[in-house]
Amino acid sequence: MVDLNQLEARIRRLEDLEAIKSLKYKYFRALDMKQWDEFAECFTEDACTSYSDGQYQFQGIYSIMKFIKRGLARYHFFGLHHGHHPEITFTSDVTAKGVWALYNYMIDTQEDKSLLINAYYQDEYVKSGGTWKIQFTSYHRVFEESWLRRDVPSLKLDMNIFASKTDPL
Amino acid sequence: MVDLNQLEARIRRLEDLEAIKSLKYKYFRALDMKQWDEFAECFTEDACTSYSDGQYQFQGIYSIMKFIKRGLARYHFFGLHHGHHPEITFTSDVTAKGVWALYNYMIDTQEDKSLLINAYYQDEYVKSGGTWKIQFTSYHRVFEESWLRRDVPSLKLDMNIFASKTDPL
Amino acid sequence: MVDLNQLEARIRRLEDLEAIKSLKYKYFRALDMKQWDEFAECFTEDACTSYSDGQYQFQGIYSIMKFIKRGLARYHFFGLHHGHHPEITFTSDVTAKGVWALYNYMIDTQEDKSLLINAYYQDEYVKSGGTWKIQFTSYHRVFEESWLRRDVPSLKLDMNIFASKTDPL
Repeated sequence: MVDLNQLEARIRRLEDLEAIKSLKYKYFRALDMKQWDEFAECFTEDACTSYSDGQYQFQGIYSIMKFIKRGLARYHFFGLHHGHHPEITFTSDVTAKGVWALYNYMIDTQEDKSLLINAYYQDEYVKSGGTWKIQFTSYHRVFEESWLRRDVPSLKLDMNIFASKTDPL
Repeated sequence: MVDLNQLEARIRRLEDLEAIKSLKYKYFRALDMKQWDEFAECFTEDACTSYSDGQYQFQGIYSIMKFIKRGLARYHFFGLHHGHHPEITFTSDVTAKGVWALYNYMIDTQEDKSLLINAYYQDEYVKSGGTWKIQFTSYHRVFEESWLRRDVPSLKLDMNIFASKTDPL
Repeated sequence: MVDLNQLEARIRRLEDLEAIKSLKYKYFRALDMKQWDEFAECFTEDACTSYSDGQYQFQGIYSIMKFIKRGLARYHFFGLHHGHHPEITFTSDVTAKGVWALYNYMIDTQEDKSLLINAYYQDEYVKSGGTWKIQFTSYHRVFEESWLRRDVPSLKLDMNIFASKTDPL
């Protein structure tokens, strides 16, 4: 016989899965569109990062945002961060782990450099007050390519939504 | 106590979410494979578009398809349009909004040009007769790069499924 | 009136959908990270492939893995295979078909070549012993571009996780 509470738990699990995906999608959108308040909302207060195979380790939302503001928030960096292939595993009703593929293309107009990263994320999520947040996020690079933009002399960049922006303090 | 009708509504919401994703996936597949009947099926009769930050605004499926047939339907344009990061919000049981990341790489062999667009879609969907359709679709570019293909002298393009095709009237 | 068994069947369908997506995500992750045991686990014993418009047809997991070990498993090939736009159709409770968009960027350092493929997968899946596996997988290319890496003189490749690896026998 079908147990109603079990059915409800299975539905909740599917809803939680969608909520975790949406959290990661908000994270990437906020990152590329430089929406820093929304970006910060994705993390718990005491979240930790270990970006680029452990090169960029930060503890706490304040340190994470300081790192971001010194780097990606500036208007000579333009990023395309797309997250794919979510493999989410629940470790309890309020905790989960996630593996994601990252397609990351970066432009640094100051260094005249482009960068392509193929990487895999390993994340930890926690649900608190009904909302999923990132507790820990890290990625390891599979491979990475970079080149000088002057190698493609006709290259033209339109910065559209960032055209008239100036760097944060 | 668990309410059966509420459970059913939550399942339907998850099914609707999958249906909206599938609609957008069909839209992108039809676009890149130049399957114009399937592409047209994705829209309501009175659908509106606002592509490229409002540069390409059309009202009604007839106008949208006329625009497409003059542009992307031709066999010197080859597109890779991949939609990522669906953030879907239901505004009623039969209406929803969607935000999507777009990875768009375009080849124009006539102009000898390649184009990379990082953009975000904002869509509106409506369910009618049990089927979700696009009521409104728009995107804003985050950044856009273009270059002349002759800058990479060894570049070779195989058009595979389009090799023997001729332009529509 | 809501039928409990029907509700359960609809939840199971949504769970199966997620399981099939996770299977494909594991397949791509294992492919790019050269995790061949996990890659082989994705297939049924008698699985068939028809890669590259039928150029690479193999029957049985042994033949598929032999093909992979001669090609992609070697450490002068680096792949980025990202699967998008899953359109999954169930043909029974234990069989399904899937259409996926493929973004495939390949580096062959021996041939000094890069390759970009825009393709569409057509798969068949089967559930056996509670686990979904790939029974058949194929893709057709929409278009394909290749170029010699020496055309971009400043190009630098970091192979990170593969840096000290040697080819399998």
